[in-house]
Amino acid sequence: MKKSPLAPVSFPDLPEIKGLRLAALAVGVKYKGRKDVMLAELAPGSTIAGVFTKSKTCSAPVDWCKKILPKGRARAIVVNSGNANAFTGKQGERDVKTMVAAVARSLKCPQNQVYVASTGVIGERLPVERISKVAVKLSSSLKSNRWLQAASAIMTTDTYPKGASVTAEVYGQTVTIAGIAKGSGMIAPDMATMLSFVFTDATIPEDLLQKQLKKAADQTFNCITVDSDTSTSDTLLLAATGQVDHQPVKNEKELKSFQSALQTVLTDLATKVVKDGEGASKFITVDITGAASAKSARTIGMAVANSPLVKTAIAGEDANWGRVVMAVGKAGEKADRDRLSIAMGETTIVTRGKLNPNYDEAVVTKHLKGTDITIKVDVGVGKGKARVWTCDLTHDYISINADYRS
Amino acid sequence: MKKSPLAPVSFPDLPEIKGLRLAALAVGVKYKGRKDVMLAELAPGSTIAGVFTKSKTCSAPVDWCKKILPKGRARAIVVNSGNANAFTGKQGERDVKTMVAAVARSLKCPQNQVYVASTGVIGERLPVERISKVAVKLSSSLKSNRWLQAASAIMTTDTYPKGASVTAEVYGQTVTIAGIAKGSGMIAPDMATMLSFVFTDATIPEDLLQKQLKKAADQTFNCITVDSDTSTSDTLLLAATGQVDHQPVKNEKELKSFQSALQTVLTDLATKVVKDGEGASKFITVDITGAASAKSARTIGMAVANSPLVKTAIAGEDANWGRVVMAVGKAGEKADRDRLSIAMGETTIVTRGKLNPNYDEAVVTKHLKGTDITIKVDVGVGKGKARVWTCDLTHDYISINADYRS
Repeated sequence: MKKSPLAPVSFPDLPEIKGLRLAALAVGVKYKGRKDVMLAELAPGSTIAGVFTKSKTCSAPVDWCKKILPKGRARAIVVNSGNANAFTGKQGERDVKTMVAAVARSLKCPQNQVYVASTGVIGERLPVERISKVAVKLSSSLKSNRWLQAASAIMTTDTYPKGASVTAEVYGQTVTIAGIAKGSGMIAPDMATMLSFVFTDATIPEDLLQKQLKKAADQTFNCITVDSDTSTSDTLLLAATGQVDHQPVKNEKELKSFQSALQTVLTDLATKVVKDGEGASKFITVDITGAASAKSARTIGMAVANSPLVKTAIAGEDANWGRVVMAVGKAGEKADRDRLSIAMGETTIVTRGKLNPNYDEAVVTKHLKGTDITIKVDVGVGKGKARVWTCDLTHDYISINADYRS
Repeated sequence: MKKSPLAPVSFPDLPEIKGLRLAALAVGVKYKGRKDVMLAELAPGSTIAGVFTKSKTCSAPVDWCKKILPKGRARAIVVNSGNANAFTGKQGERDVKTMVAAVARSLKCPQNQVYVASTGVIGERLPVERISKVAVKLSSSLKSNRWLQAASAIMTTDTYPKGASVTAEVYGQTVTIAGIAKGSGMIAPDMATMLSFVFTDATIPEDLLQKQLKKAADQTFNCITVDSDTSTSDTLLLAATGQVDHQPVKNEKELKSFQSALQTVLTDLATKVVKDGEGASKFITVDITGAASAKSARTIGMAVANSPLVKTAIAGEDANWGRVVMAVGKAGEKADRDRLSIAMGETTIVTRGKLNPNYDEAVVTKHLKGTDITIKVDVGVGKGKARVWTCDLTHDYISINADYRS
């Protein structure tokens, strides 16, 4: 698989998070000769927050994570690629428990503090023994600086590992947030899409941590789409190891810097997922303004970002703005055709329903020849706005997906 | 453009409908050297019913048709291909009126009995003079047997003209229903999709005609999807010329045979639209049973039919039923993972959440090598059912749409 043309030059240099150690091994769940299992160990007392797929056919690991999340405490996250352990019935549940028990034993921690995520093929039984029998080996190889290995082990059709980090202030103390993500197909809105694991050394109670995560996810992972298809396994976890000794956080006001930093990290990870969208050759930012509400703006943005006709037009470097009009119209949200404004790149094409008399298509065509495309739409009815991200739809998407499993 | 591999052998031999005459001309709206305007003339007293796109950016012709529909009477339908007269503002409204006035003059009929439809590029002004100046010539070339010419004149990226007919009984008298349709991209649910014009010589009051059409459209045109994109111009009209002298129809009970016949014609036309879906190489029928309601079944069916991952798997002849599970899950409707059953062709793959122990993938793979694919899903929660139709997603879809406009 050739690397996405939108890939960053290299994996970022991620900082150590006190209270977090990582390990990754090649156990041959499905792929041969590459790391496919990762373990994150968290210091005792670490809090955790999570958001998961809303799929009605969600995987056994997602069911497990949802079940233990209300406790708010985590000591480990174990993840495998190659098999999603989804649509595997009661056997799938037993296999999750086998994984959890093995990790809990090796780390001497409670089972209900071991989170699990699996990604890959749906409907095949997970070869769980291959994972459970290396639990001790995984535990003994834990190190604080194994970011690249961990990010690589969770990849499926991803063409590059994804990581991001940033610092924030809590009560004047510097805390760090760093995380990894994977995902390139089956990426769609309204979910904490695919797998992402984010860590901080800050000390944040689980209820506040959950609020912070939900808020940031809604404006980042829930605003990306590759192909409108929703995974059965989408999982986003945020763990706080509590190793920075700042004053106890009692309310959200103390977390303004943290919230902003978290959103920065999640945006970085989410857009990296889009840039590795299957077959992506262009990264597209869709900005919607003037909508009836933020929710309405997001719906319209997603209608544009999910439209196969818009995405193929961008792939073909065709300034076919009529397809943007179509997509706004089909969203079903309030919009005023005679107040609609559309721009691509820096070029205003339509203002208040009328073609800009100075519109020069050649300038837009030049913009479309780049890899970083922007579409701006003002729908002319209110003050709601949203930004969503997607990629184009190319021959490579078809090639990858007409032959993924075999 | 090469003809769809799913095209019928030939255009059907459609019968004459008393009270209907058709004409088609090449006027060069956009395409050169092919018919691109069609006129249907209806006998005085003809009733009409219509369903239209729900797009918030619908075209000027759709606005016009919606405005005059409550009168329930029609004398003419004029249609052009090559330009949708959509997103053309006040000028677009004026251009519709110019077309209407020219046709009304040439047929000496009221303007509010002249229906208009336009299909093609969005956002460019319609060259209306080219159409209005041939109104007299169109009127003078009206003939009762111009079905093929009319069906050809309304095509855009269609690769073959589409027609269908059937007979029914009303009070023991034989009536005929015949119609034409077009559409190959921007085809999506919840709309009277693209353009279709259906005629009958029966005598049916407009309110009953509208009920009949709505009911039939919901189970035919509103159950097809090519690419999930919704046109700004979708229009389905049904006109009754009242030339068969049966007893006056007072309620729906008298129209059982007619309703069934209408549904047959619309199914024929709607599936012909799918079989001409851009880049289609396989025709896919999705049957959903065991849903909470018929509406829920349709939503699930559409989630399967719109899933790029399901559609590319079929294109690749890959028996990847896990993607069907994913699509059912993302629909957001009630479904029981542990009671889900899935079949492809005649092969049961999953029964009540468990892989069929006798499942032989080779048999499904053989089915997928054909062109007529069936996917059956029982979601295990109720008695709701629905059938929807779609086509696969291929390299040709990308090729056609990355370069449509230029």
